[in-house]
Amino acid sequence: MKAADQQTAEGILFTDQYQLTMAQLYYRMGMHEQYVQFDHFFRKYPDYGAHQAGYCINAGLEWLLNWMQDAHFRPEDIAYLRSQQSRSGQRVFDDNFLAWLCEQRPFEGLTIRAIPEGRVIHPGVPLTIVEGPLARAQILETALLNHLNYQILVATKAARMHDSGQGRPVLEFGLRRGQGKGANAGARAALIGGADFTSNVGISHVLGYPPRGTHAHSMVQVFMALGMGELEAFRAYAEVYPDESLFLVDTISTLESGVPNAIKVFEELRRKGYEPLGVRLDSGDLAYLSVQTAKMLNDAGFPNTSIVLSGDLDELVIWQILTQIRDEAPRYGVDADHLIRRLIYGVGTRLITSQGEPALGGVYKLVAVRTDGQWTPAIKIADSPGKIPNPGHKHIWRVYDQRGKASVDLLSLDDEDPRHMDRINLRHPSDHTRQRVLEQYQITAIEPLLVKVLDRGDHVYDFPSIEDIRRLRQADVERLDAGVRRLVNPHIYHVSLTQRLWDLKQQLIGAALRSA
Amino acid sequence: MKAADQQTAEGILFTDQYQLTMAQLYYRMGMHEQYVQFDHFFRKYPDYGAHQAGYCINAGLEWLLNWMQDAHFRPEDIAYLRSQQSRSGQRVFDDNFLAWLCEQRPFEGLTIRAIPEGRVIHPGVPLTIVEGPLARAQILETALLNHLNYQILVATKAARMHDSGQGRPVLEFGLRRGQGKGANAGARAALIGGADFTSNVGISHVLGYPPRGTHAHSMVQVFMALGMGELEAFRAYAEVYPDESLFLVDTISTLESGVPNAIKVFEELRRKGYEPLGVRLDSGDLAYLSVQTAKMLNDAGFPNTSIVLSGDLDELVIWQILTQIRDEAPRYGVDADHLIRRLIYGVGTRLITSQGEPALGGVYKLVAVRTDGQWTPAIKIADSPGKIPNPGHKHIWRVYDQRGKASVDLLSLDDEDPRHMDRINLRHPSDHTRQRVLEQYQITAIEPLLVKVLDRGDHVYDFPSIEDIRRLRQADVERLDAGVRRLVNPHIYHVSLTQRLWDLKQQLIGAALRSA
Repeated sequence: MKAADQQTAEGILFTDQYQLTMAQLYYRMGMHEQYVQFDHFFRKYPDYGAHQAGYCINAGLEWLLNWMQDAHFRPEDIAYLRSQQSRSGQRVFDDNFLAWLCEQRPFEGLTIRAIPEGRVIHPGVPLTIVEGPLARAQILETALLNHLNYQILVATKAARMHDSGQGRPVLEFGLRRGQGKGANAGARAALIGGADFTSNVGISHVLGYPPRGTHAHSMVQVFMALGMGELEAFRAYAEVYPDESLFLVDTISTLESGVPNAIKVFEELRRKGYEPLGVRLDSGDLAYLSVQTAKMLNDAGFPNTSIVLSGDLDELVIWQILTQIRDEAPRYGVDADHLIRRLIYGVGTRLITSQGEPALGGVYKLVAVRTDGQWTPAIKIADSPGKIPNPGHKHIWRVYDQRGKASVDLLSLDDEDPRHMDRINLRHPSDHTRQRVLEQYQITAIEPLLVKVLDRGDHVYDFPSIEDIRRLRQADVERLDAGVRRLVNPHIYHVSLTQRLWDLKQQLIGAALRSA
Repeated sequence: MKAADQQTAEGILFTDQYQLTMAQLYYRMGMHEQYVQFDHFFRKYPDYGAHQAGYCINAGLEWLLNWMQDAHFRPEDIAYLRSQQSRSGQRVFDDNFLAWLCEQRPFEGLTIRAIPEGRVIHPGVPLTIVEGPLARAQILETALLNHLNYQILVATKAARMHDSGQGRPVLEFGLRRGQGKGANAGARAALIGGADFTSNVGISHVLGYPPRGTHAHSMVQVFMALGMGELEAFRAYAEVYPDESLFLVDTISTLESGVPNAIKVFEELRRKGYEPLGVRLDSGDLAYLSVQTAKMLNDAGFPNTSIVLSGDLDELVIWQILTQIRDEAPRYGVDADHLIRRLIYGVGTRLITSQGEPALGGVYKLVAVRTDGQWTPAIKIADSPGKIPNPGHKHIWRVYDQRGKASVDLLSLDDEDPRHMDRINLRHPSDHTRQRVLEQYQITAIEPLLVKVLDRGDHVYDFPSIEDIRRLRQADVERLDAGVRRLVNPHIYHVSLTQRLWDLKQQLIGAALRSA
């Protein structure tokens, strides 16, 4: 795409046509300034087929706010909208509406409360709450969903890989497999969720992270095509990057050529006073090869060099590799724990695409309208009770149990504060048979989860650094029950309504069913 | 991401770190100007799990070339690279290399031949052939793969949906489910592959397409929350868009509320002299509901209004819906063919993410080096014979059989022209037992597939319009055998080597195995 076109396609027109036609309808009906609230939330954890998430990681908010700050109706955008015609040649958008669009910035008057990036999040809990004039909140929908859904998806996948890899470094290198420029959002989300580095140079620079990488098969092939070999390629690499010698050893044969050649060059490096970094295995049986490679490196006096594994890794593959290593390593005289501590995981396709579940079904639903200063909750009846959004202007709380573990996310009415309740009646969001009572002695803390990021159009939030976001994520994941973190068939984390919110929801459902 | 950061993250640093470190290594070894050839190709068709593609559609080339034209090392990019440090605090990139990077534009001297966008393509066939100075060709790799892999993936999925939908219009509306800004590339690729419109406003504008859309559930909900109902919402829509009245009818109940209310407003519209467009069904049993909806619309005197189907559609779901309609419609007195001719498919998530196979494993492999004006083919031994790239400087041909159907894609040596061969010995790329002979009488045409798009850094190709690309795609798909187009378990299209290219490949493999 040409640069000028990119400005057009990524600015305020980065939306669905119906947002603009609905906005004009609201304008023509005099409803455009009606003050409303939309909640952004997802209905279920990503399900990767053979396994599923038990928690998600929030991400994408800062980039959404950046986009909102820059996006505006430029004269050329308005000219384009003016040129749109219906089937009979009538203009789709009239001058009055277009003039209104340009009167103020597009998101003027919107207030946003949100759960910060990096926090653990769950289905049915509003993550981003947008309130303000109807037409402006409507125009935001597509861009909001685009920015948040994908980053949550990838941050969640990265957290699973980090967990499955037992905290050993995870390198993101999916740039070539992402959806065009969207791969940058994926790299950011991967870092938030649990990747420790990315190979993506530009995004590393922007986020203040050192990019990481080794070399490709093509480097070895170039040397071979020019009449040299793998050994010469490694030597050249060691000469140029004596501090960072990490060799890809599977171009010819991992155990017969790659590792022996790497060891030769490691020895040469050490004689020059450098410590080699390690090797990368990119094909074959990674568990078996890593055991054999570790043995060869140990025997050669390099017991601390890293072993980078890559090649269609995801959380299950990593888990299987570790299981196999624990089983096989002792048979070859290799200490499994020691080997695992030297592993690094390079993950590409399956992280950047969230393979198995390549989209998060996050939605943006009207939950309240305000008239004369009073919020009126709105409800939408759906084909299944679990799909009915939780109505009204709400607060979100996280309740920690006696062990300090997060035990429930609680949605309450605006005027409720569970910190001042003697006991909390927890209601399942849709199943009336499921409820339980929490006494205060069972609770160590109740934390409000929302922060205000936009106040009537003004940006009022200092976005934390990626490092700080990562710390939030790590702390939140550690406060989850082990069962909720389980890779396969995780335990269900509780999301509950207060009794009063439950009562309100039932009353609204009843009224809606009677009137339908 | 902030606008300035976006320039950084999407410019020349939109790459993997190792491309730059390898380029410096080539520079330091004096190999950076070595003239080489890399081929971009994919190894297998997308496999969606329960079904798989039998052909792909090429896409992404124009945007890659646009990116190459704009990307350059800005002073701030160089300053950043200069600041990178190794573990011991040494600079990663030295001044000589950085000066060389800036001496010319990054892709100066590269020549690119490619198969045009919209053409049907197959595994193992070079789609984009890059030749030129090694370091510059290496630096291009990541961006090339990023731009081409994803658009091919989505164009392919769109072609399948178009085919499965029997040519009825396909509307792309996956913007909210794509990977950030990458959704724009997805919308473009969808249009190339078979979608007829997209809801994405910006990309429609850029490509000169009218964007399409209806309205969301939220519009009906807003009316309900303000004390009105679905009927009033439809009436408002008809008032503002009398020419474009297409109502989403499942907010309350499709058959009990939505369709009857739509019909009421359709009648009002007709009295005012307007013809309504139709209705959209977004939940429930779409086959059953479309039959019932058609019946109600027919009975009310609206037999020609469209019925838009949406909700996690993909090619298999569309196929199943059509099968069920053919079965069920007659039972309700509805003509199935007539109903199918009024269908329109709205596709979101499963197209923009290519659900089931969310990445194309396109690769970029060194296949030849040129010294003293002579090309020397390069080979890479892989763990399976099918993964060994086809070596050397090559031509690509498509052979059409007596029926005018494409029957084989043929890779030949540079100095071969199968149009002048009496008979062509077709060799399977890796299986020596599979070969067959084509006589000239069996052939109606042999078409060279590659065009030159970049000549030593100069852009020498007029990119066709999206409309022209779509026509290429349509013509190519029609020249495929029905078996190759089959949605499930398609027939295998033949990709072959000429006898001389096969002999050369075997000779190189033999030499490589002896020297390894």
